[in-house]
Amino acid sequence: MLDKVITISREFGSGGRELGMKLAERLNLPFYDKELISMSAEESGLAEEAFLHYDEHISIQQEPFKQRLYTPFSMLYEVSMSDQIFLTQSRVIRKLAEQGPCVIVGRCADRVLENSINLFVYAKMENRIKRMNSLETGVSPERMEERIREIDKKRKDYYQYYTGCEWGKAQNYHLCLESSLTGVEGCFNAALAYLQCYI
Amino acid sequence: MLDKVITISREFGSGGRELGMKLAERLNLPFYDKELISMSAEESGLAEEAFLHYDEHISIQQEPFKQRLYTPFSMLYEVSMSDQIFLTQSRVIRKLAEQGPCVIVGRCADRVLENSINLFVYAKMENRIKRMNSLETGVSPERMEERIREIDKKRKDYYQYYTGCEWGKAQNYHLCLESSLTGVEGCFNAALAYLQCYI
Repeated sequence: MLDKVITISREFGSGGRELGMKLAERLNLPFYDKELISMSAEESGLAEEAFLHYDEHISIQQEPFKQRLYTPFSMLYEVSMSDQIFLTQSRVIRKLAEQGPCVIVGRCADRVLENSINLFVYAKMENRIKRMNSLETGVSPERMEERIREIDKKRKDYYQYYTGCEWGKAQNYHLCLESSLTGVEGCFNAALAYLQCYI
Repeated sequence: MLDKVITISREFGSGGRELGMKLAERLNLPFYDKELISMSAEESGLAEEAFLHYDEHISIQQEPFKQRLYTPFSMLYEVSMSDQIFLTQSRVIRKLAEQGPCVIVGRCADRVLENSINLFVYAKMENRIKRMNSLETGVSPERMEERIREIDKKRKDYYQYYTGCEWGKAQNYHLCLESSLTGVEGCFNAALAYLQCYI
């Protein structure tokens, strides 16, 4: 029986979220992706907007002064807003893991947890543009490519800043799946087969 | 029906060769690993010892003078022995691919060919030491770890020197499999499931 959390890291537009949802459904596990934002806001008492703003990216810039006025004095020179957000999300992720196996997408969960099974999903740029354009109409392929590169860069920087590990380096994950060749379905079949000694 | 070559890159001791053999057997495909050495020697007319010596590693150092005396004059300042070996092996790999699908282990076949399905296999150091110690008795775990690191470094340098790509970066492969968690059997099941749209 599966006794571990499955984490999914993913390039934007590669279908990682879809793969996670399919695995959660098939294995009858809770699924967490954007859900972590409101759960973390609730846990911390901070506004959900702050979690949305800093979701999977870091701000190297100093916080605006106005915002700092509302930061508790003891934290003023200690923990930046993005650090607070990361720490809260990590606490929520660890609590979820204590409750039992589940599927968690993104948010460095593969490094926050010590004993998870970690998947990385990626795809060719042309396939990711096509995929995202089919989900969001009215955006040119050029603008979509720009957006994909921006979001990937944010995810990569965020991962590397908070974990010290290299995003997309195979050895950081148990199974890395390219979704252009076989579609999300092929990745789903491969992941299920890989996990079969646990399920 | 599978119409592509399957290439396998692998960390030393991770079971990549075993996975390749199992896939070749199951899919009824020719399998090439060390076989490429004698095939390339035959293709080039160079001694098999030279291919063994330079197998999957580059020599940055100048060739010894004695060896250079036997190098054809026109090649003396043009193509080093390791370059000759790489070029011959690449020619052999392309010829094999022209004959139809097969499984090829190592030798940058994933970059030599343009349309292959590329797997990367890796494992935790402790598992690789255990695996290699079970195959070769009389070597201490400490010495085995040293050997594993040496061979990995050679493979990595060789791959990066001849392809310009990063060895072990997930996006360079279609499927990357960690064999400590599930054994070679789990990787085999995952690879078969991934390939099922082709077989």
